[in-house]
Amino acid sequence: MPAKDVIPAYDALIRRASSPGRRDLKGIDIEDKLIAVIASSRLFLESLIRAPLVSKIVGKEYFMFVGNDGKKTSRAVNSALYLDTFDAGQLRCALSCQTDGLGSEVLTKIVYTAAISYCCAADLLKQGDQKTPGTFFEVLIGHIVAVALDVNPEQQIRVPTLDMDITIPTDYVFDLGPLKNRIHLPIKISTRERVVQVWAHQRVLDGMHGVARFKGILIAMAETNKQKETSVVEVCLPNQWIAYQMYIAQMFRVYYLDLPQQYLRLKDRYPFIQVKPFGDFYEEIAKIEGNDVL
Amino acid sequence: MPAKDVIPAYDALIRRASSPGRRDLKGIDIEDKLIAVIASSRLFLESLIRAPLVSKIVGKEYFMFVGNDGKKTSRAVNSALYLDTFDAGQLRCALSCQTDGLGSEVLTKIVYTAAISYCCAADLLKQGDQKTPGTFFEVLIGHIVAVALDVNPEQQIRVPTLDMDITIPTDYVFDLGPLKNRIHLPIKISTRERVVQVWAHQRVLDGMHGVARFKGILIAMAETNKQKETSVVEVCLPNQWIAYQMYIAQMFRVYYLDLPQQYLRLKDRYPFIQVKPFGDFYEEIAKIEGNDVL
Repeated sequence: MPAKDVIPAYDALIRRASSPGRRDLKGIDIEDKLIAVIASSRLFLESLIRAPLVSKIVGKEYFMFVGNDGKKTSRAVNSALYLDTFDAGQLRCALSCQTDGLGSEVLTKIVYTAAISYCCAADLLKQGDQKTPGTFFEVLIGHIVAVALDVNPEQQIRVPTLDMDITIPTDYVFDLGPLKNRIHLPIKISTRERVVQVWAHQRVLDGMHGVARFKGILIAMAETNKQKETSVVEVCLPNQWIAYQMYIAQMFRVYYLDLPQQYLRLKDRYPFIQVKPFGDFYEEIAKIEGNDVL
Repeated sequence: MPAKDVIPAYDALIRRASSPGRRDLKGIDIEDKLIAVIASSRLFLESLIRAPLVSKIVGKEYFMFVGNDGKKTSRAVNSALYLDTFDAGQLRCALSCQTDGLGSEVLTKIVYTAAISYCCAADLLKQGDQKTPGTFFEVLIGHIVAVALDVNPEQQIRVPTLDMDITIPTDYVFDLGPLKNRIHLPIKISTRERVVQVWAHQRVLDGMHGVARFKGILIAMAETNKQKETSVVEVCLPNQWIAYQMYIAQMFRVYYLDLPQQYLRLKDRYPFIQVKPFGDFYEEIAKIEGNDVL
């Protein structure tokens, strides 16, 4: 029964990722535990019926998994991105950033499938669980980026003030060394109206340490929203993103696993927010580590 | 049966406040409908048993209302701020800003009681309803401030760009006329980690229109959180507030109905965030409208 393996595998991953040894987010031990969660989730999902959803998103098709009780359903899954046949070796390539000639498109699909597998399993195995899919996604993406940069992240930062000693929690931040920029890496299942937090935290880092000392990279899964168990829409706020990029701070990149067209178009108009499919991340690691500010 | 009057009174208020005639948020019609919601909520609550909560907040005591089924309970209510005997004339004074010699302390209690009455009624009469208490609180506070400033607010703003025509939604903003500052008025039942939105939106306005063109005034009810139906804590993030005020934007005032001590202390240390009980708002209207930037 793979269903009963999913939650223990998740718990083992999170115990490891939040133990004092968590600082080794890039370690092989986290990778093995990620693969265990993904594999058990996929085994569970394989046994389930899929129901098509009416897609109100031009050019994209979606389905959902239906629980064995016939009542519970999963979130919307992008049919073109979800891989049914899944090469374990390719998954390890994506997780360990040894891309081995795999292109952006395939890498996006592999990581999408890995990420949404646990999310769908949790939708069906747990009750109203918003938290563990978000935590899983953060560890999954955090691991990949930590491997790519060969640095483990921190999740708090000291405010540099004259006469106070204040530490505040942050999204993942990576210190690449004294001669390099640092990375600010917010990771979100979806963003919606909460997205302003991303730009606001970038602004705090810019204010503390100088503009462009931290490159801000937002990584998100999708902006899909299931409606009445029958259809799926994308909730996008491109005008707000434009205002935030103009007036709060400048994000260096935004990567999506299931990229909304409305956001993709933002790279072609002022202020030219660089929104890309996640697979492109693998090709841009040198640029992210380097001193380019664009 | 007052219980059955609460929801229709709320619906009538919101229909009026969101009709094309909503622009008259400061009108007497809104005031009458607010009073109807508050009066019916209080009548309903009067019939209920109160259960004390274990307060983990120094110097404050809380109780909750218990529904007639003995199962549902309301949010935590501050015993010292909730007025049992309620003078309808005093309520009208508070709503219409004809304070008639009532001091800050009494005004805070009147508005606290008015605000939390509907919230508690909704906790007991509806199922998992987060939305209508927030909307009610926004209309209540929006009305008082609109009366005080004698201007109705807008809820969207045009981004002033060279070659785009973009409008984005905002919290309430008030235009006091060409020679005066404007007001940016976020209104929240509680703030928690979402509070960064307040500073971020202030930053967008500062960026668009120049620093201090809009005075930012946050009005919040409380930061209490009920735990396991038996006790109550306050969730405060003062270090984050300090970082936001230093690095994102400068809020002019923060008013609370049930003011946490941890935030009150912020006015005594750099960057001196002016956090005050809501009753002080009535005494500071001239300062808010005037050209002082502190």
